[in-house]
Amino acid sequence: MAPHRVGIIGFGKIAQDQHLPAIRANPDFELLAVSSQRGLSPEDAKYTFVDYREMLKLPDLDAVAICTPPQVRHDIAKQALQAGKSALLEKPPAATLSELEDLKRIASSARKTLFTAWHAQHNDGVDAAAKALQGQAIKRLLITWKEDVRQWHPGQQWIWQAGGFGIFDPGINALSILTRIAPQPIFIKQATLEFPANRDAPIAASLVFASGSVGEDLRAEFDWRQTGPQTWDIEIDTAAGQHLLLTKGAARLEFDGKVVVDETPAEYTGVYQQFDTLLKAGTSDVEDMPFRLVADAFMIGKRVPVEAFED
Amino acid sequence: MAPHRVGIIGFGKIAQDQHLPAIRANPDFELLAVSSQRGLSPEDAKYTFVDYREMLKLPDLDAVAICTPPQVRHDIAKQALQAGKSALLEKPPAATLSELEDLKRIASSARKTLFTAWHAQHNDGVDAAAKALQGQAIKRLLITWKEDVRQWHPGQQWIWQAGGFGIFDPGINALSILTRIAPQPIFIKQATLEFPANRDAPIAASLVFASGSVGEDLRAEFDWRQTGPQTWDIEIDTAAGQHLLLTKGAARLEFDGKVVVDETPAEYTGVYQQFDTLLKAGTSDVEDMPFRLVADAFMIGKRVPVEAFED
Repeated sequence: MAPHRVGIIGFGKIAQDQHLPAIRANPDFELLAVSSQRGLSPEDAKYTFVDYREMLKLPDLDAVAICTPPQVRHDIAKQALQAGKSALLEKPPAATLSELEDLKRIASSARKTLFTAWHAQHNDGVDAAAKALQGQAIKRLLITWKEDVRQWHPGQQWIWQAGGFGIFDPGINALSILTRIAPQPIFIKQATLEFPANRDAPIAASLVFASGSVGEDLRAEFDWRQTGPQTWDIEIDTAAGQHLLLTKGAARLEFDGKVVVDETPAEYTGVYQQFDTLLKAGTSDVEDMPFRLVADAFMIGKRVPVEAFED
Repeated sequence: MAPHRVGIIGFGKIAQDQHLPAIRANPDFELLAVSSQRGLSPEDAKYTFVDYREMLKLPDLDAVAICTPPQVRHDIAKQALQAGKSALLEKPPAATLSELEDLKRIASSARKTLFTAWHAQHNDGVDAAAKALQGQAIKRLLITWKEDVRQWHPGQQWIWQAGGFGIFDPGINALSILTRIAPQPIFIKQATLEFPANRDAPIAASLVFASGSVGEDLRAEFDWRQTGPQTWDIEIDTAAGQHLLLTKGAARLEFDGKVVVDETPAEYTGVYQQFDTLLKAGTSDVEDMPFRLVADAFMIGKRVPVEAFED
């Protein structure tokens, strides 16, 4: 029997494309159950539920991976932790920062593992970039995160609603890489958020950051209207004159023009390896910096109306 | 000589109307210096500066009260703490949550007092309401915070800019009372933010909260377009059938129709009493819940354009 019997709550695109294969490939996990409001389930799940509350009654269940839209994650995670189950939170980890703060408190008093799974951090270029930047000052930063929302979020209406995060749904991946590799704390100083006339969430965002160095130029450009090839790049010049280029969502790293990492992305393999480590150690890993930066961008962002967008 | 020699940074309306008289009235504080870009200073300040960095060089200065607009507070507080001065932050305590988080870290490593001065918490009705609500469940909450922006923020253009908070500048006072009196954690579930056509900050906001109780009805209405009498009320019904009414910004409390507190507001007297206690104990008091709720409201809020507003 595998050490961790896990249940998936919410069986949509991310659960099917990413969590399911990562769980199947990791011998430390056994897929015990799936809960899906539509009653979807893979054939290797021992149990299937329409109501996750029924799943939480399984005495053999050790942990759940919460892959629902973020609006309901706090409620579900709270009940899971209180039922004695550890919880992995897909990103963004909750609907609001206050909800995430509350889950930290609950996990700690329930003595269960709570894990904010920032999958983009598990690309091989991330650790290599963090190491290269240690002790350096960043002089120039350009994050370009541009993708085709029609390809990645087909028919997902919740992402366009107020609280659905819009372009920050992918953008938070870039921010989760940034908070991991930046050698100093980085703050959002200006943000412009483009809202389509028919939507309550932004389709694009421009961010200006500051870390406090004189003459720095730190920016991000997020856009969901990209067609053709997708762009998930982070370019950095250090004060010491080094140049880093992370591409393919940080699966590839060039350092001063030389390729030092170029791996096939295996983000969720890394996510479940880390979840295994946390579960075995009985500890939590709740990283709220990327989510806090998103809230900061919404709080200080200038809203600019743009053309209606139909998907 | 008073125990704490204090400097005021930013000598605008709130510093002149509130901080100055509270410092003068408290024998534990001596006003050593004032820094003001416009060179304003009261006659009892020993030193006057145009550049706060010059003030921070005063070896006798123990602490600063940072009364500038929030956009520059992080920079100033960081330099003050690093110069070995304790810092009081007017509300909102910074431009972003990430900046406040950074200041926490800096204060802790500098071993200096950092104090988020939520002045509204110092009304006498607040402690009385918190005590009355202990162990209770709130069934109905209605916060009504309606005031005339022309009266309270004459000519303050920064509050209307992106990042200027708009109606949340007074609204955060209500939220700081709520976080102090609520017997359970409270989350924002829905927010509607009204943006005047010519402004980048909201003039009104409606919030729906949840604490997890079945059948609860928890709301707030913030509006800056009030004329005539101002309204700063919080009405609460508990599940046990008790009724609380906080009015006059929590200076007055009725409990089941009976007036139990009715004091002249003396918010900043309380602020400086608490600052004195913290300075003497060498500890910090950084409460980020009210600020986090504001960020949550901006992040999940639905933006509604309304008529242009000229002040």
